Amino acid sequence: MCLYAKAKLSTRGGLAFLLFVNHTKDLNKKVSVSAQEMELENMKKYNIAVVGATGMVGRTFLKVLEEINLPVENYYLMASARSAGKTIKFMGKDYVIEELTEQSFDKDIDIALFSAGGSTSEKFSPIAASKGVVVIDNSSAWRMDPKVPLVVPEVNPEDIKWHNGIIANPNCSTIQAMVALRPLQLAYGISRIIYSTYQAVSGAGMGGYSDLENGIKGEAPKKFNHPIFNNCLPQIDVFLDNGYTKEEMKMVNETKKILGDDSLRITATTVRVPVFDCHSESINVELKKPFDVEELKKVLADAPGLVLQDDPANAVYPMAITAKGKNETFVGRIRRDESIENGVNLWVVADNIRKGAATNAVQIAQKLIEMWENGEVTR
Amino acid sequence: MCLYAKAKLSTRGGLAFLLFVNHTKDLNKKVSVSAQEMELENMKKYNIAVVGATGMVGRTFLKVLEEINLPVENYYLMASARSAGKTIKFMGKDYVIEELTEQSFDKDIDIALFSAGGSTSEKFSPIAASKGVVVIDNSSAWRMDPKVPLVVPEVNPEDIKWHNGIIANPNCSTIQAMVALRPLQLAYGISRIIYSTYQAVSGAGMGGYSDLENGIKGEAPKKFNHPIFNNCLPQIDVFLDNGYTKEEMKMVNETKKILGDDSLRITATTVRVPVFDCHSESINVELKKPFDVEELKKVLADAPGLVLQDDPANAVYPMAITAKGKNETFVGRIRRDESIENGVNLWVVADNIRKGAATNAVQIAQKLIEMWENGEVTR
Repeated sequence: MCLYAKAKLSTRGGLAFLLFVNHTKDLNKKVSVSAQEMELENMKKYNIAVVGATGMVGRTFLKVLEEINLPVENYYLMASARSAGKTIKFMGKDYVIEELTEQSFDKDIDIALFSAGGSTSEKFSPIAASKGVVVIDNSSAWRMDPKVPLVVPEVNPEDIKWHNGIIANPNCSTIQAMVALRPLQLAYGISRIIYSTYQAVSGAGMGGYSDLENGIKGEAPKKFNHPIFNNCLPQIDVFLDNGYTKEEMKMVNETKKILGDDSLRITATTVRVPVFDCHSESINVELKKPFDVEELKKVLADAPGLVLQDDPANAVYPMAITAKGKNETFVGRIRRDESIENGVNLWVVADNIRKGAATNAVQIAQKLIEMWENGEVTR
Repeated sequence: MCLYAKAKLSTRGGLAFLLFVNHTKDLNKKVSVSAQEMELENMKKYNIAVVGATGMVGRTFLKVLEEINLPVENYYLMASARSAGKTIKFMGKDYVIEELTEQSFDKDIDIALFSAGGSTSEKFSPIAASKGVVVIDNSSAWRMDPKVPLVVPEVNPEDIKWHNGIIANPNCSTIQAMVALRPLQLAYGISRIIYSTYQAVSGAGMGGYSDLENGIKGEAPKKFNHPIFNNCLPQIDVFLDNGYTKEEMKMVNETKKILGDDSLRITATTVRVPVFDCHSESINVELKKPFDVEELKKVLADAPGLVLQDDPANAVYPMAITAKGKNETFVGRIRRDESIENGVNLWVVADNIRKGAATNAVQIAQKLIEMWENGEVTR
């Protein structure tokens, strides 16, 4: 693999490599680099498979791939037998969905974006990896595997380097928190985090969406245990023996892994609210060092992938309806928590299907390609 | 006043005095005492005024008064000139709304339940008090006045004793938290509280209700700064200089006053969610003493006014839709917070118009009458 990578690189010479990031933010502090400026035509083109292309997240994968111009030769869209044979419009072309089988990765595929659930990933990710494909998996199957990096590209891109064929995409509620917390960790250190979440129904897939839509019309829920319309459900995923839900423990454990600090003290209460898209989070943070609130805001404003929306006088703060369709994470309501030394409260919102799933996975692919191209990771 | 009270008591002899509390709870640990069992017919009857009887909370005052059988001779329903002259069905009779004027309290009134906003209360509560009426005020006008007790009857009934004619009803989001936290304070001591709230639109009155109803139909909001349908608004009430909203600081300051501990360390993030009725709260508590989770649950299960709903295996936890119309506060999702010594997470839900406003005010009146009757407070 290493020799092959070197051979590839030698054909690329010293070409300046710029990756296109789709910045939708209105603040122009981060300059957009247009696809036209990329030297795409000179680059090696990669083959990418999208596994689970017909699901809610899978379809957003395709949307984000259309927006983020990766150097791709061929796309392969795959799904279960049930969806195989269907045609999907993608990149201006008609794609026929292929059935996912053990032979699917026998062809020349560089990256497979998996969004097909835990059991499919458990079976097919190792098969793909064994054939030289790098799987970027959106399920929870591999996230806590010590041999699998768990990556938010703005936060811990260096973890991509030690992948063994599988890179895990974190849980939606964790990803957006990481984008807001990493800059604070770097600037001040973090000792304790208390999460309370306000999570959208789209996190539960099409069924969650339908439950809210039908609940408005007075119909009973099918996906959730209780009605979600006109209600808050303090349960996301199943309960564990310690009284926490799986979602809550995901936030606790994934945060430690991504921020690379097992000594972090974390607790979480995760709640489903009657909102279609975008998760909101109330985060209470105990920092290690003293801070000035205005300086801390500047740290957040300058952080990658993060947009500061914090102008109370004009009722400007992050909201689900304004975060929808965006690839960034939004932070506001920043206030000193006087109840503890070095305490701060944050309100963090992101589109859970985009930055919380599809965008983050595609950005991992983008970063991986960048690392292949500049030799940081061997192909 | 003292002599008068003694005279009254002497006429009552040693009559066992039972106050009727409308227990709607399904758990039968707290026995309902029916109105029939009361010796109402032997008791002195009081005259009660309801000021602001036509508003959303005012109308719930009337509903709760119909349910909680106080020993009342006459009711007087009052409101602003705009509503005066209207007829309201109450206690099976037609009541004509009287206009609230400076002369309204010249007649023999014992208690006035005010739910007419801050400025009306600022003007008329002192007038009423000067004429011997005890005002129980639902606005925020008097809550932090050191001469005015701030009371949740299950929590700090003894504070009623030092009233000077005005007793303040706490903020809705504070009341329900107090019912859940007081038993923990008594059993273990509390050192720090972190509130994140999920508050219903009815807390913003009829306008809040309409904004959600109309928002579902795609109409723009009138009451709130932003749409509340399909959204979470991290703003309740106006912003203060410290970056907190007034609602957040109400929770911080009122908690200290009601729990009688200025050394309590508290922070809050208050959020409006698209739910019509009932506030939910994620509360992280640092206790002073070690605890056993099962014992702590028992402490909560045995606490007055509180119903434990904590059976994760059967998806039983407090919810807005099940708390609606109830006078109790509901607590569940009780888990040890491993991120700190003696930490515990709670999920607390109550009907914000009932226990968060009308029920609590009527219960204060009930307690006051009880204290008058048994001589703890002089009339």
